[in-house]
Amino acid sequence: MATLAKTQTENPTEIIESLAREGREAQRRLALMGDAEKAAALRAAAAALREDEAAILEANAKDVAAGEANGLSGAMLDRLRLDSQRIDAMASGVEAVASLPDPVGEVIDRSTPPNGLQLSRVRIPIGLIGIIYESRPNVTADAAALCVRAGNAVLLRGGSEAVHSNRAIEAAMARGLASEGVPEGAVQLLPTQDRAAVGAMLAAAGLIDMIVPRGGKSLVERVQKDARVPVLAHLDGICHTYIHEAADPAMAKELALNAKLRRTGICGAMETLLIDSNFSEAKGVVDALLEQGCEIRGDERILALDSRIQAASSEDWDTEYLDSILSVAMVDGLDEALAHIAAHSSGHTDAIVTSDDAVAERFLAEVDSAIVMHNASTQFADGAEFGLGAEIGIATGRLHARGPVALEGLTTYKWQARGAGQARP
Amino acid sequence: MATLAKTQTENPTEIIESLAREGREAQRRLALMGDAEKAAALRAAAAALREDEAAILEANAKDVAAGEANGLSGAMLDRLRLDSQRIDAMASGVEAVASLPDPVGEVIDRSTPPNGLQLSRVRIPIGLIGIIYESRPNVTADAAALCVRAGNAVLLRGGSEAVHSNRAIEAAMARGLASEGVPEGAVQLLPTQDRAAVGAMLAAAGLIDMIVPRGGKSLVERVQKDARVPVLAHLDGICHTYIHEAADPAMAKELALNAKLRRTGICGAMETLLIDSNFSEAKGVVDALLEQGCEIRGDERILALDSRIQAASSEDWDTEYLDSILSVAMVDGLDEALAHIAAHSSGHTDAIVTSDDAVAERFLAEVDSAIVMHNASTQFADGAEFGLGAEIGIATGRLHARGPVALEGLTTYKWQARGAGQARP
Repeated sequence: MATLAKTQTENPTEIIESLAREGREAQRRLALMGDAEKAAALRAAAAALREDEAAILEANAKDVAAGEANGLSGAMLDRLRLDSQRIDAMASGVEAVASLPDPVGEVIDRSTPPNGLQLSRVRIPIGLIGIIYESRPNVTADAAALCVRAGNAVLLRGGSEAVHSNRAIEAAMARGLASEGVPEGAVQLLPTQDRAAVGAMLAAAGLIDMIVPRGGKSLVERVQKDARVPVLAHLDGICHTYIHEAADPAMAKELALNAKLRRTGICGAMETLLIDSNFSEAKGVVDALLEQGCEIRGDERILALDSRIQAASSEDWDTEYLDSILSVAMVDGLDEALAHIAAHSSGHTDAIVTSDDAVAERFLAEVDSAIVMHNASTQFADGAEFGLGAEIGIATGRLHARGPVALEGLTTYKWQARGAGQARP
Repeated sequence: MATLAKTQTENPTEIIESLAREGREAQRRLALMGDAEKAAALRAAAAALREDEAAILEANAKDVAAGEANGLSGAMLDRLRLDSQRIDAMASGVEAVASLPDPVGEVIDRSTPPNGLQLSRVRIPIGLIGIIYESRPNVTADAAALCVRAGNAVLLRGGSEAVHSNRAIEAAMARGLASEGVPEGAVQLLPTQDRAAVGAMLAAAGLIDMIVPRGGKSLVERVQKDARVPVLAHLDGICHTYIHEAADPAMAKELALNAKLRRTGICGAMETLLIDSNFSEAKGVVDALLEQGCEIRGDERILALDSRIQAASSEDWDTEYLDSILSVAMVDGLDEALAHIAAHSSGHTDAIVTSDDAVAERFLAEVDSAIVMHNASTQFADGAEFGLGAEIGIATGRLHARGPVALEGLTTYKWQARGAGQARP
């Protein structure tokens, strides 16, 4: 990440303009390819990934060696490292995307107003998508496959630490896609790691139609702050679970443990637990979490439950730990829970545990997050779990697409009006 | 527009933050009001507009007098001027919006993936909408009604030339809405005409969820250039009609005349006519336009048709005249027409006239504009004509909503997941 060496003499804005124009031109032709053609091209891309295994592993070995020399953490090296199995999984992922239904051409609705025009809204690709991502080289294949499946061109900008791996993966994908008629330029990897090129991507309004950042909070923060191009993303996943007084105690305990501890590093992990003061088993839930090694930071009434609990500071209610740490507050009823969530949720995923359906429906209606859940673990917040096949990301903005975003979120629509010679009176 | 006098001592950013927080708080409660409640509130607002006729006319007279003193053009004074009939039309417009179906609560789709969660995507309001507009005071009532119908709060910033009219209209609307339980703050008009307040609105990412500019090109251009908040708008309406060789000559002539001349000042007016070189009646169409007083700027082959035609310059193909002026080019077949449109269309509305359905379908598929038409006048590009009841504007961006945007475009969705205690494996 620290390398600022330019790999090109041109300035970053010119590089991005040139790539974007090439991508847009390729996309115009890609948009007209049919379902079967695009699926065949993606299968060919998957085959090319498998064929190029040796070349990809060789490139990856360079990145891993450089990462070790530069002192990358073990976790980052693990994300970076490829092996035969991971390349196979990457290829299978591309094949899975090929098998998803093509969203393009779907008629969203039809109508015939009094003027007699036959109107329909038809799903079309968005255009050119920019993906800005970090260490995991599999994003190169995943993101490219999703974009192409929905008829979009893609401009990829991976992390410096994976530069050789990304190039090898992109080369294989591009060759496979081209062998089945996808125009060159539909999938492009930035030829430079100059960080100014990221700035130029973010500024390319009118050339790049949407940007999806995939990576840590500092990356997403920069993209959201600087982009003049629309961004699909979430910054935080400060997810809540509210255990209502009418919650089944065993269910409440299981869901709290799962939402927090199944995987602590994902954006759908619970970060704050709200326990109703009339719920009888608060101590049982908290003890189970402590016994599983979870650090608990509680408000005054939670503190009183167990000496192992620490006092929460005011920042704890706005913190995404992504770790075995949980903030826990006791609330007096649904309204207080709703107010806490309205004040502190990041709008990602919030859940209630209760046997009272009327209370659950109020929670589902009133919590204004991208995903609201009743009697389920917040860790289900995921495109594959939602039956979408794969996701390009999870979005917490208000417009276009919210929650897990998959192929449909990579499309837009146009109006088609079929007339019989109508002039407007 | 030139008046920069501050009406408040606070700085514009603080004013906008304070108004936005009030609006967001009101919106949280407005979002929970039902269909009938919101409709009743809008009808009360319409009644209040009628009750306040005298006060609104008095305020309007001040604006008109100031406009005359400041040398506003006749057209601008006409847009500004209200009378009893226009106030009645404004109130009727609000009642019409009250009668539109409430989009909030609609279940967009449902599914049950293998994990057993009952998923649904439910339509919800976007939040706080900013409207920035010019001289026509009726926008105050129209835009507020549409936003409130879909459960949104709205922050209105009208033009200086209509400041008294807008205040009187907003006061009536707010009183009517409040009488039926709409929280105060749901409809707010900026208390200042300081232009820096517009800048503060455009910068208010996270506080204002979407901005819709309503007005001339320079307003839209500034909003699109400076906004950090998502913008729904179109800058140009450079609309094309392509007369294919298989067009019915009488239909082609009628549609060309209607698309250009019915009203020349609307964004759906045709600005460029493409005539196929194999269409036999090119001269007839051009003559009819000339006879109706339309100035024609043609390419070389069009110039040869009539001595009254002027030579088009290269800028003509990218010009929105909004006047009785038309650029006309002769093209050799569909592909050349598609290439011209791809190069010069503003993505608003483009039409083909042909009796060949296969050609028409290719045009409808390949032209990448918000609205594409077959055998119809481009002047139909309008929310009411599309059966949407009313429109907040026409959008040519790629994301969220395209073409005429009405109530649905003022909503977003959330995912509701109903479980039975599922923990994620």
